[in-house]
Amino acid sequence: MIKAGIVGGTGYTGVELLRLLSVHTHVEVVAVTSRVESGRAVADLFPSLRGHIDIAFSEPDTAVLHGCDVVFFATPNGIAMQSTPELLQAGVRVIDLAADFRIQDQALWEEWYGMSHSCPELLPRAVYGLPEIHRQKIASANLVANPGCYPTATILGFLPLLEAGVVDAGSLIADCKSGASGAGRGASVAALLAECGESFKAYGVSGHRHLPEIRQVLGWTIGELPGLTFTPHLLPMIRGILATLYARLGSEGVDLQQLYEARYADEPFVDVLPPGSLPETRSVRGTNRCQIAVHQPRGESTVVVLSVIDNLVKGAAGQAVQNMNLMFGLSETSGLDSVALSP
Amino acid sequence: MIKAGIVGGTGYTGVELLRLLSVHTHVEVVAVTSRVESGRAVADLFPSLRGHIDIAFSEPDTAVLHGCDVVFFATPNGIAMQSTPELLQAGVRVIDLAADFRIQDQALWEEWYGMSHSCPELLPRAVYGLPEIHRQKIASANLVANPGCYPTATILGFLPLLEAGVVDAGSLIADCKSGASGAGRGASVAALLAECGESFKAYGVSGHRHLPEIRQVLGWTIGELPGLTFTPHLLPMIRGILATLYARLGSEGVDLQQLYEARYADEPFVDVLPPGSLPETRSVRGTNRCQIAVHQPRGESTVVVLSVIDNLVKGAAGQAVQNMNLMFGLSETSGLDSVALSP
Amino acid sequence: MIKAGIVGGTGYTGVELLRLLSVHTHVEVVAVTSRVESGRAVADLFPSLRGHIDIAFSEPDTAVLHGCDVVFFATPNGIAMQSTPELLQAGVRVIDLAADFRIQDQALWEEWYGMSHSCPELLPRAVYGLPEIHRQKIASANLVANPGCYPTATILGFLPLLEAGVVDAGSLIADCKSGASGAGRGASVAALLAECGESFKAYGVSGHRHLPEIRQVLGWTIGELPGLTFTPHLLPMIRGILATLYARLGSEGVDLQQLYEARYADEPFVDVLPPGSLPETRSVRGTNRCQIAVHQPRGESTVVVLSVIDNLVKGAAGQAVQNMNLMFGLSETSGLDSVALSP
Amino acid sequence: MIKAGIVGGTGYTGVELLRLLSVHTHVEVVAVTSRVESGRAVADLFPSLRGHIDIAFSEPDTAVLHGCDVVFFATPNGIAMQSTPELLQAGVRVIDLAADFRIQDQALWEEWYGMSHSCPELLPRAVYGLPEIHRQKIASANLVANPGCYPTATILGFLPLLEAGVVDAGSLIADCKSGASGAGRGASVAALLAECGESFKAYGVSGHRHLPEIRQVLGWTIGELPGLTFTPHLLPMIRGILATLYARLGSEGVDLQQLYEARYADEPFVDVLPPGSLPETRSVRGTNRCQIAVHQPRGESTVVVLSVIDNLVKGAAGQAVQNMNLMFGLSETSGLDSVALSP
Repeated sequence: MIKAGIVGGTGYTGVELLRLLSVHTHVEVVAVTSRVESGRAVADLFPSLRGHIDIAFSEPDTAVLHGCDVVFFATPNGIAMQSTPELLQAGVRVIDLAADFRIQDQALWEEWYGMSHSCPELLPRAVYGLPEIHRQKIASANLVANPGCYPTATILGFLPLLEAGVVDAGSLIADCKSGASGAGRGASVAALLAECGESFKAYGVSGHRHLPEIRQVLGWTIGELPGLTFTPHLLPMIRGILATLYARLGSEGVDLQQLYEARYADEPFVDVLPPGSLPETRSVRGTNRCQIAVHQPRGESTVVVLSVIDNLVKGAAGQAVQNMNLMFGLSETSGLDSVALSP
Repeated sequence: MIKAGIVGGTGYTGVELLRLLSVHTHVEVVAVTSRVESGRAVADLFPSLRGHIDIAFSEPDTAVLHGCDVVFFATPNGIAMQSTPELLQAGVRVIDLAADFRIQDQALWEEWYGMSHSCPELLPRAVYGLPEIHRQKIASANLVANPGCYPTATILGFLPLLEAGVVDAGSLIADCKSGASGAGRGASVAALLAECGESFKAYGVSGHRHLPEIRQVLGWTIGELPGLTFTPHLLPMIRGILATLYARLGSEGVDLQQLYEARYADEPFVDVLPPGSLPETRSVRGTNRCQIAVHQPRGESTVVVLSVIDNLVKGAAGQAVQNMNLMFGLSETSGLDSVALSP
Repeated sequence: MIKAGIVGGTGYTGVELLRLLSVHTHVEVVAVTSRVESGRAVADLFPSLRGHIDIAFSEPDTAVLHGCDVVFFATPNGIAMQSTPELLQAGVRVIDLAADFRIQDQALWEEWYGMSHSCPELLPRAVYGLPEIHRQKIASANLVANPGCYPTATILGFLPLLEAGVVDAGSLIADCKSGASGAGRGASVAALLAECGESFKAYGVSGHRHLPEIRQVLGWTIGELPGLTFTPHLLPMIRGILATLYARLGSEGVDLQQLYEARYADEPFVDVLPPGSLPETRSVRGTNRCQIAVHQPRGESTVVVLSVIDNLVKGAAGQAVQNMNLMFGLSETSGLDSVALSP
Repeated sequence: MIKAGIVGGTGYTGVELLRLLSVHTHVEVVAVTSRVESGRAVADLFPSLRGHIDIAFSEPDTAVLHGCDVVFFATPNGIAMQSTPELLQAGVRVIDLAADFRIQDQALWEEWYGMSHSCPELLPRAVYGLPEIHRQKIASANLVANPGCYPTATILGFLPLLEAGVVDAGSLIADCKSGASGAGRGASVAALLAECGESFKAYGVSGHRHLPEIRQVLGWTIGELPGLTFTPHLLPMIRGILATLYARLGSEGVDLQQLYEARYADEPFVDVLPPGSLPETRSVRGTNRCQIAVHQPRGESTVVVLSVIDNLVKGAAGQAVQNMNLMFGLSETSGLDSVALSP
């Protein structure tokens, strides 16, 4: 059994990790830390976990975490980097669900996240944990930067086009929509049901932290940073992201459907839908799946890609488990084979 | 023009008052106070008010408020009582949308609200502002305690039965459901869309502050405190209350439909629906109306009353405007004649 | 492997059965019938099932169904009774998720369901499939009537009180609230998002088909039909039922918490929450669990029981799988051990 | 008083027209027709209208409609064209809220709407009723084609850019999101709360009827048909459209904020928000307003315009009333000055 610790278990990515790990046959959750809730039974805060998780929240305790095989950070940005060096030194593998190790360029990270990085020397060792591009690297990594939710949906959607070089990489548009769980479980006015229910808006139009992350990863594919306009929106619902992606075809006669099917033929969690499909977020709710449809409306030169994920699963905790599976040589789908809850 | 001031204009009852007063032809809003937002244009915080409210939030300023004809308190409990005495002395009429003056019994109030009352001498002068029972008193009042949202729906639903003495007043049950705006606009985890969306629960089962308020008012009718079990629930939506009320008939042969229609025949804001009706909260959304249906399922001895209001209008700001209309001799429906926004 | 057939697989109970059975390690789904969708891949209609269910809808075909070990009817009322006799004769076990065999009294059934029963001779053989009262009978049954959703939540909530004889069985009140999936997947105006979203109402106040079912089952416990007022309501959400139950204590000094904990101590799917708990429907979303809290507000004589289920799982498909497990001697929890999807 | 008739008053645009007209001081609704509901009180079907609309649905009756000053068609496509010729001949002015007269090119209309046009000779007389471009023409029109909901939000958003010629008109993108009321009040599976609640998807990607309408109108501005990719999406909420619009700047140094403010300076219902604003659909809920913000993220060459309307008001019934006001020489804002219902 893999001994897993979760630092910061009171947020949505934390409770989602607990949901997935509690039924994972190869994992034992030995610690869930929270300064605020220390001493309280986890299942008291999250009654959905009654009978599945029997431990209490504990203070972040070096000794206990050092005894883990893997530690997940489900913390705000800037926390994981504080204790990751010593955990790695103690031989513990680390998966950070926050953004501390997602951006390889330290200066860029510090610009967007507004703080100094406390262990930039680890950035080259951190593997960006998108298995669809880094499966081998993840398998041998000690430190995995779990991708952001928007980046996961967006990158998987654009990837086949960019790898094949069939679109203009200078004018990409990602119009993305996310459920409110993406804002986290912190108290805030903006995320109240009475504020964001029955309404819809864009946010972060002038610049969102996931923009440099998406550009960086797509840039690895094409060898230079793509031009990207990224507009996130807040949906009046809890889970799910739909990325509606636009790119201009540079080549004619490309069989887009075939391109996508071939690229993801062996991917257990990327499901290319039949031609003409219109993916719905509910069809992947609670699962680690990304469903993608590619359209070329009216045969014109603009490609429209529709990519859906559950932001808390493939966009966070599920992808973290997928990464853990790879890091420990387990079946990649272990613990991730449930069916979406639809309706 | 009546000069109106609003203390605490950043919450939901505040912005709802602004919505109603901004189109009220006899009222000019001269001050909206907020310590936190002081100096910021009201319409900047609430873009729905652009072009309707052109002033900025101001510091609570004695001079400005003393120049008002009426001051509305849309504040947390315990604030209005601090400045009401001097406002009354300055000849300003006061309508408190919070609970400071709702309970006549000081000790009971202090028990439920967990603080000392700073001006108990005003309690006998405060009129409980439910026009359907206190129309005359309100007209001559200087200080009106605007009723709570659950009490409004519940009292109007039970009133005909208790006034007529046809039910057992010792075993009343009020199973009430409210939209999330009732929790206010303060930052909180429990009211996040991701917490209370797509879910449903009861709360306050062991005791809710509206229980003594309902019992007090119903008690005025029957001369003693009724026995009441009150269970509030949180609906995954924004506006609206449905009170499902149960009482056991003590008499036979009562024409309940006729009883309700007669009681509310002259009430501009209580609409008794035809026999067999099933009121929906959306049918009163945005309006000051209470729609009521009375049922006697299968002719048995339990009466079921269904009473719907918009918690922010008849349950708060609209009733406050109705009270203001009465206090200033205006038509009772002035500024309150809009049609519900349905769907 | 148990060969299972599903008749009427296009509704919500059908797709939910497919979700559960597709990952059940002892079951193979060999047929899913639908006249309308015959020939269409199941996963084409329900993309959530892609990769999990690879067969197509088929015409209801006697031969195929006769080759099954068990057939589930996820059909409208009145369909299962048409082919159940011959299926039983062919040695196939039948679980009806509709109401055809729920009411033992033929005349009563025909009154409430408005049709003649085509095989009343089977009613005595049909076992009402609530394992918490009929575990042994179900294990040896060939024909199981899967309980209604409201009855499941309501009966489990009232049962300990009635079995212990501590409340007045003549004045029970069940104020129940259900998500919109309970209305089924048929086209209807009333169930449109634009009709029942952001709104709330009661329905069926004058009489709902689940009333006689609840009374029948509770009646088995106390030896006579209880007096029950049952008010269903429609929640603006998809899944979940909360039953708020009221009963008057006839005895003093009863330890209600202990009563409930003792009654359900060995039940794998009934979870009695700690004193003071307020169950939320989301905490059982997607699971076969019923979470119950019992309250005695302010020590008065009215007991308030809060009982939550997922109407499509413990209220339909999950309970059907639980019944199947019992009928085939499998572990009762087989295929039903997932964790609730919360948030 | 203007005598108004409404043909097809049982849908969402119909009931919304009734909401607006019932409080319009210059209009009397003399007939609301519906074959299905004929004889039933309008307020019985729509309890929100109790006390505001006292007539019953009537059969579509030539005589009554011929006695109207204006007839609104709130019908499915293809109905208005059947009786418009005789109504015009009888001197009745017609406002069609459906699509019969929106496309000037008969062949194009027939291609997209899949039927023959029964009175193509009226197309040249029909005025496309977007007051922001056709105020004068509408004032003298007898036949107004009320714009579609998506076209209203999209055209108002793009208009200043195209009129000023500062963007590439060949590569416009309109990523639009609408509440479920846009699908109408007809029974359908796809629009059930249990289908489209808590989920999100695109639809009509391969071609939506509003695409040729938008292109036609924008084409009038630039003298040729623009290149446009239009992707509508279905939001899990009732009212509201947000159009997120993308265009590539062809010129440098354009003051976009100034461009928008100048273009709409005199428009009573187009509200250009301050720089950096993020319009929310709730801020225009129930009103005839369009709120627009224009962004140029990171100073790059892609302009992002955010345009919100209430699809049932500025996108349908409200704009129809605005058109009526213009046609009858009333104040353009008459009956349309309410404040948005927010929250």
